[in-house]
Amino acid sequence: MPKAALRVLGIDPGGFVAGWGLIQSYGNKLRLEDSGTLRPRRGDPFTMRLCALHSGLTEVLDRFQPNVVAVESVFFSRHPRAALQLGHVRGVLLLAAAQRELEIFEYPPATVKKAVTGNGRASKEQVRQMVAMLLGSEIKGAADKSDALAVAICHAHSGGLLSRIKDLDPGPPRRRPQRGKP
Amino acid sequence: MPKAALRVLGIDPGGFVAGWGLIQSYGNKLRLEDSGTLRPRRGDPFTMRLCALHSGLTEVLDRFQPNVVAVESVFFSRHPRAALQLGHVRGVLLLAAAQRELEIFEYPPATVKKAVTGNGRASKEQVRQMVAMLLGSEIKGAADKSDALAVAICHAHSGGLLSRIKDLDPGPPRRRPQRGKP
Repeated sequence: MPKAALRVLGIDPGGFVAGWGLIQSYGNKLRLEDSGTLRPRRGDPFTMRLCALHSGLTEVLDRFQPNVVAVESVFFSRHPRAALQLGHVRGVLLLAAAQRELEIFEYPPATVKKAVTGNGRASKEQVRQMVAMLLGSEIKGAADKSDALAVAICHAHSGGLLSRIKDLDPGPPRRRPQRGKP
Repeated sequence: MPKAALRVLGIDPGGFVAGWGLIQSYGNKLRLEDSGTLRPRRGDPFTMRLCALHSGLTEVLDRFQPNVVAVESVFFSRHPRAALQLGHVRGVLLLAAAQRELEIFEYPPATVKKAVTGNGRASKEQVRQMVAMLLGSEIKGAADKSDALAVAICHAHSGGLLSRIKDLDPGPPRRRPQRGKP
């Protein structure tokens, strides 16, 4: 893949674990690099788990050197206690990315689903299947990984669009690929 | 003050700023060491402010070397959006303490107020006045500082109790100081 490929790390923070997925994007082409789940030990105190998530993501960032990080924005229909807990986890993950001076982009869940499946209300299984199809690679294991890859793909599409607007002379508008509007 | 003094750092995280206050506690004696407010620049992106809060608290920890950190637990009556934001801030502050392998204690706001003023529903101003009286020092500036000192005092009181239970032969129960039960 050419040097100018954009390396996008998608992150899917949960209340206790976090999925991550790295893709390379060049023009309309996408390639899966790797994906995984940060899974602190369940019995550990919450603050130790925050440490493990932060250092785990820092390792991923240092190993894969993404150009940009994409993360889902959060539903506000949650119970405040769940929102508070998710906030702690999200805070230390965003911190890790910000400490590496990476740009961080947020996308609402419906935007991510629509960018990947064409349907803003797609199920997790539908997302997983489309992510696998788009990347030409089966995504095994927990949904955290395919959700993280989905937000990376969503960014790659919008990022591609933005760079088209910036880099090319204004010409006749190109049709986006078959998945519909992002 | 003797070597065995306990150095307690209290932290009061808010949605955008965080107060901190360090006390030394030895038996029933309390002494104010220092206090301050971490106040990231308002115009900065949220993730940069998380970085500033994390590095600011890390500096305080490295400079003052507390033995223990105390922080208020959180009301859950908040709006989920506020809880989420507070969660991000609280997450990076707790992370800074956990990265220094400090023990972190949480106290409900009513417990803190009661420990300091005798009244679990005291106003911020009442807390400020009692903190100043207990530490023999005026607390100038924002309420973040006196709130942070209040939770440190609350811990010093409970910590003192716990160490009494652990360190002394079981004898007749001692009466706690005049402020009532913590």
